[in-house]
Amino acid sequence: MKLISLRHPLNSKPVASDFVELDIPTPECPDQGILVRVVHLSLDPYIGSRLRGKHMGEAPPTPGVEAIPGAIVGEVVQSNLDGLSKGDWIQSMEGGWQEFVSLKEGAFRKLDPTQAPLASHAGVLGMPGLTAWAGITQLANVGEGDTVLVNAAAGPVGGTVGQIARIKGAERVVGIAGGAEKCAIVTDTYGFDACIDYKIDGWEAELKKALPDGLSIFFENVSADMAITALDNARTYARGVLCGLAAGYQVQSQDRVPNPLPMGTIIGKRAQLFGLVVYDFYSKWDEFAGEAGKWIQDGKLAFAEDREEGLENAPALFERLMNGQNRGKAVVTVSPEKA
Amino acid sequence: MKLISLRHPLNSKPVASDFVELDIPTPECPDQGILVRVVHLSLDPYIGSRLRGKHMGEAPPTPGVEAIPGAIVGEVVQSNLDGLSKGDWIQSMEGGWQEFVSLKEGAFRKLDPTQAPLASHAGVLGMPGLTAWAGITQLANVGEGDTVLVNAAAGPVGGTVGQIARIKGAERVVGIAGGAEKCAIVTDTYGFDACIDYKIDGWEAELKKALPDGLSIFFENVSADMAITALDNARTYARGVLCGLAAGYQVQSQDRVPNPLPMGTIIGKRAQLFGLVVYDFYSKWDEFAGEAGKWIQDGKLAFAEDREEGLENAPALFERLMNGQNRGKAVVTVSPEKA
Repeated sequence: MKLISLRHPLNSKPVASDFVELDIPTPECPDQGILVRVVHLSLDPYIGSRLRGKHMGEAPPTPGVEAIPGAIVGEVVQSNLDGLSKGDWIQSMEGGWQEFVSLKEGAFRKLDPTQAPLASHAGVLGMPGLTAWAGITQLANVGEGDTVLVNAAAGPVGGTVGQIARIKGAERVVGIAGGAEKCAIVTDTYGFDACIDYKIDGWEAELKKALPDGLSIFFENVSADMAITALDNARTYARGVLCGLAAGYQVQSQDRVPNPLPMGTIIGKRAQLFGLVVYDFYSKWDEFAGEAGKWIQDGKLAFAEDREEGLENAPALFERLMNGQNRGKAVVTVSPEKA
Repeated sequence: MKLISLRHPLNSKPVASDFVELDIPTPECPDQGILVRVVHLSLDPYIGSRLRGKHMGEAPPTPGVEAIPGAIVGEVVQSNLDGLSKGDWIQSMEGGWQEFVSLKEGAFRKLDPTQAPLASHAGVLGMPGLTAWAGITQLANVGEGDTVLVNAAAGPVGGTVGQIARIKGAERVVGIAGGAEKCAIVTDTYGFDACIDYKIDGWEAELKKALPDGLSIFFENVSADMAITALDNARTYARGVLCGLAAGYQVQSQDRVPNPLPMGTIIGKRAQLFGLVVYDFYSKWDEFAGEAGKWIQDGKLAFAEDREEGLENAPALFERLMNGQNRGKAVVTVSPEKA
């Protein structure tokens, strides 16, 4: 089977030529596990730092040996577990860039393939969606009357944050994204009230205009500088979800305190800040997917996909993702849904 | 009557010679208010920045005219309000360094003089105690099994935070203070499990030893650097109350981001941070004083006072407070409790 690995240890932003395709034997089905045909593969920005050993202390995959990590949606082709049979569908965070994967018990979630399009489990119902849902509902506790600001708003986390906020009763939802094309996704596909293009001079004044009464919730995906801009536009008692530092995934900070937030402003605004790591919410995945699956069926939750067919196209799509050139959630369809 | 004002506008840390005593007519009792004989006057660190116009956007008092602001406990000598009579006791944040003060309706709270020693309403039952109670119970929601770290622990906020934490079931309470004498107050008077003297080389290693399982709550009174030390010793899911920046009240930060907190660490630890301004909890003062008054009567809540007799001694005590040389809550008894 095909598997994509690192060509060499990585110390900078990955590009397509950093990856190498290997042809190795298909793994055996484990005694206490399943063998899965990988169908949809999720490409996510945090993998950029993971490959350099800079994510949550996790070791990078061994170059020339191990698959690049990534969440997958796949079909069971062999099972040694009760309750799982050939033809069942699963989702796993322990998949990777490969055609087949062996998974032990506990390393995957069984899916209901009728709940939503299968690829959505690698996107809006996958880790990015769970991240959005956990932050905006479980931490920020969004509700009636909230005004929500989220950046990287064209991405699968940001876009879902804003849509869930609206579904939960938020009064106003404003996004920040880079470029007119992404901003159009945010307002037209995701239905935000406004989207500010941070690549345009004077965007901070535009943001202030888009938040005439300030924000009550911000969801930070990008950087401490952006979080400071959010705090500057925050009402008293604002809640902030600190989710990601995408702008810094590829660089080492030279600051004395990396990614600094101003403590005096947090006090003065009586802000409440919540560090979010989606791992903590894996136990709530079924609850989230049940709720969000209905929203998809009811047409309330939209998602944009940047989909490539064929594992061999993963490196180029990943390079585009690293450069912010993707348009919607990056998903690689490794093999057809119907084998 | 005597009143103490600024001698001149202030641009640096106040010293005793920055103040001037005036002799002015005793104010009239307002139509919708009361006239109060000031008995106990609270001196608090935030006044140092308030005098330079650096506190919550409030203007400094006019030199040579207005009294230095400060919370007071006093006796009503004349009343034009229903429900308040000569001889009643009140507490007010709108008092100041003067022998009598006129207060309008809504600018004071009536006290029960049998609830606790009257001077305690300028200390452990006053704003410092309310600050401690609000942060540790209303924001951090301290409870069984928590391990709490608080700095400026010999002060009236820090010392009360630790004691309330213990009363509410915390498993371990650790303080940080400057010098052996202050640390002795923290462990002996306030009953903390340990107190680390930050003026001793290697104190950070001692702190780590004093928190073998990390902290679950920190209460920050001093600086962002100290908050970073706390975060470094925090368990996952720790809660942090951001209350004050006492170390910076006298200086202007030269940092690009003033008082920076590391966003990546907050995310990685899944920390929850709460900006605290005690103003927001004035409406809960009766609830707090009722609860804490009982703790005082039951001998569960101790407090150290650094008390001076006579308004003329306020400037010298305030200078000591600004230099961290006070021993316990700084209180000036302006006139005897029994006139």
